[in-house]
Amino acid sequence: MTWLDLPAGTGFGLDNLPYGVFSTTGTAPRTGVAIGDSVLDLAAATGDDVHATGSLNAFMARGPQAWADLRAQLTEWFTGGAHRSTVEPHLVPRSEVTLHLPVEVADYVDFYSSRHHAENLGRMFRPDSAPLTQNWKHLPIGYHGRAGTVQVSGTPVVRPSGQRKAPTDDAPTFGPSQRLDIEAEVGFVVGTPSELGRPVPLAAFDEHVFGVCLVNDWSARDLQSWEYVPLGPFLGKSFLTSISPWVVPLAALQAARVAPPARDVPLLPYLDDSDAEPWGLDIAIEVRLNGQLVSCPPFDLMYWTPAQQLAHMTANGASLRTGDLFASGTVSGPAEDQRGSFIELSWGGTEPLTLADGSTRTFLTDGDTVTLTATAPGASGGRIALGEVTGRVEPAP
Amino acid sequence: MTWLDLPAGTGFGLDNLPYGVFSTTGTAPRTGVAIGDSVLDLAAATGDDVHATGSLNAFMARGPQAWADLRAQLTEWFTGGAHRSTVEPHLVPRSEVTLHLPVEVADYVDFYSSRHHAENLGRMFRPDSAPLTQNWKHLPIGYHGRAGTVQVSGTPVVRPSGQRKAPTDDAPTFGPSQRLDIEAEVGFVVGTPSELGRPVPLAAFDEHVFGVCLVNDWSARDLQSWEYVPLGPFLGKSFLTSISPWVVPLAALQAARVAPPARDVPLLPYLDDSDAEPWGLDIAIEVRLNGQLVSCPPFDLMYWTPAQQLAHMTANGASLRTGDLFASGTVSGPAEDQRGSFIELSWGGTEPLTLADGSTRTFLTDGDTVTLTATAPGASGGRIALGEVTGRVEPAP
Repeated sequence: MTWLDLPAGTGFGLDNLPYGVFSTTGTAPRTGVAIGDSVLDLAAATGDDVHATGSLNAFMARGPQAWADLRAQLTEWFTGGAHRSTVEPHLVPRSEVTLHLPVEVADYVDFYSSRHHAENLGRMFRPDSAPLTQNWKHLPIGYHGRAGTVQVSGTPVVRPSGQRKAPTDDAPTFGPSQRLDIEAEVGFVVGTPSELGRPVPLAAFDEHVFGVCLVNDWSARDLQSWEYVPLGPFLGKSFLTSISPWVVPLAALQAARVAPPARDVPLLPYLDDSDAEPWGLDIAIEVRLNGQLVSCPPFDLMYWTPAQQLAHMTANGASLRTGDLFASGTVSGPAEDQRGSFIELSWGGTEPLTLADGSTRTFLTDGDTVTLTATAPGASGGRIALGEVTGRVEPAP
Repeated sequence: MTWLDLPAGTGFGLDNLPYGVFSTTGTAPRTGVAIGDSVLDLAAATGDDVHATGSLNAFMARGPQAWADLRAQLTEWFTGGAHRSTVEPHLVPRSEVTLHLPVEVADYVDFYSSRHHAENLGRMFRPDSAPLTQNWKHLPIGYHGRAGTVQVSGTPVVRPSGQRKAPTDDAPTFGPSQRLDIEAEVGFVVGTPSELGRPVPLAAFDEHVFGVCLVNDWSARDLQSWEYVPLGPFLGKSFLTSISPWVVPLAALQAARVAPPARDVPLLPYLDDSDAEPWGLDIAIEVRLNGQLVSCPPFDLMYWTPAQQLAHMTANGASLRTGDLFASGTVSGPAEDQRGSFIELSWGGTEPLTLADGSTRTFLTDGDTVTLTATAPGASGGRIALGEVTGRVEPAP
């Protein structure tokens, strides 16, 4: 059906077609589409300058009809042989490209939508209270993060310094974080902006959201636990957030849509998706530490869907901009090997993991590399890949 | 000394020279400098395209030498008569201009640096705990806000809707905020970016910060109190943040520098400004409701200075971008008429204010207009103006 010679089991088949920004030696960053082991140079193949800007933003801003049109054109180009001679010259081996931050991030919001993660953190951070705060099942809790430190996969993770204070210390000290952690998350990228004062209802989710990436929201737990009361996380998170270079179009995830878990309390109308086609997503994440699989967080168990997150984020009239990124919050399932952070995997550092090389870990050690990958059901019956987001920990300067 | 016919007591004399973005009917937004009752069209007067971009960002990115050079040139132009014939044609009456958002805001951070405000809020939000959290005197608490909803003075304040839940309610309800409030703050605009992984020390504050504006961080207290545990304020703040249109260069505030209040606990070295020229600032703010003066918050009593805020914000290696905006947090003094928010002025709604027209207020009513203005000592012995930030409350749609 396609003239492309796709590797068996590739997650980058015709049912995926994710967008990214790439360059080759001596050329400027431009938009590409991953297909098999290649990248299609969209700037060259389409002749459209929107793909030569060095970020996806200008194309994303064109809106859902333009997204659908280009996806249809790509499918046509790669199917049958009619376009092979014009398209094939614009394929570049993925092994030869450098991948860049795909999106110029406008605002970055991080949610907290895994019930298992929130319960685990609640038990550790607030042992004397109920694990879930009273509001948790009524609204998707979220907060703004630092957009300027969202970087592409591969960016070194320099161990941050900051104030730490153990409960037994009299006063805080300043120094390198001793509890450097990950948060395995899924991120959603806004294409179509919205007007100030106009909430985006659940049903308009796919008119505004362009696509999906993987997010590692690196976290310094010692900085975070000292600073976060009463206004939330700040320096414990703002040193780096890494995202995968390939943004998978929402259209590629139609086969991954599932119902979210049953809700325990009635939802207010603007969040009630019980009569709608739900936006739970069957995305299977894998977390590897130095190549070893340590966790398999299941995104389909997330209590709040991205459509509910978007509806909530705009319920007060807050506007969206092209390039807004909102992430799910750490994805954790009920099982120990489904936890999306090391603070959960090691239960606050009290239960170290033993790795295959015999070493143990609670939090991250200098030199550690963490890689997140994920797959989801594709339209053709196989699984599509969300790419990967990776980072290696470097010592504090 | 100057050929300009400046109004007596103008806050926009030669010792101020704030930058903004303006347009006149049928012309594109461009950079201007406020002088007396006029605006100097910088794009036309300098012929430099950096001033024709519609925001200050490109000029701010040039760095402190360029800022100093232009300020010196402006002073020369307005002093003596040599340049009058070339400069005067580019003066536009301020009454004829429309002012725009001066800065394309990159990241927006809001601090919480008034001890009196933090104590007041602590007493109201957490009556069973000490008013200041344990960390408050060790670090300037802050959090990220929504950059995309920072708007210029005059933008209508549409009453936001959201989830509210009184302690006596069984479940939250959704509807227009019943506790719409202001926060009178001072904002600092970053010009020079910094590298990821490189903290900005106290002494480098004025190499990175371009100037100062007034900020009204509109707040829906009922939304905020229900949502903010454990990750901080979100929708209670993200519907709108208004800033004054004129950005006063840091150079104009040298005469306003004062020592901050004595600190109660020793500070870690990266925050310790006891041996440095301090960056406390004697800025006197006035809050007017429908024209009536209701509060005079004193910025010189802020516990944490903007230099400490910047050093803290980057201590973990977080980078700065041109256009980053960080605000002080609500400015409140110890006296009742020095409180920078209505939740403080009305003590959580329990002690209504009586206005000159005989009406009372706890929180804001539809149709109310709130205006913040401020002045500071200028180099020539008078006071310079920080302009104003105003907004009128419109009913929920």
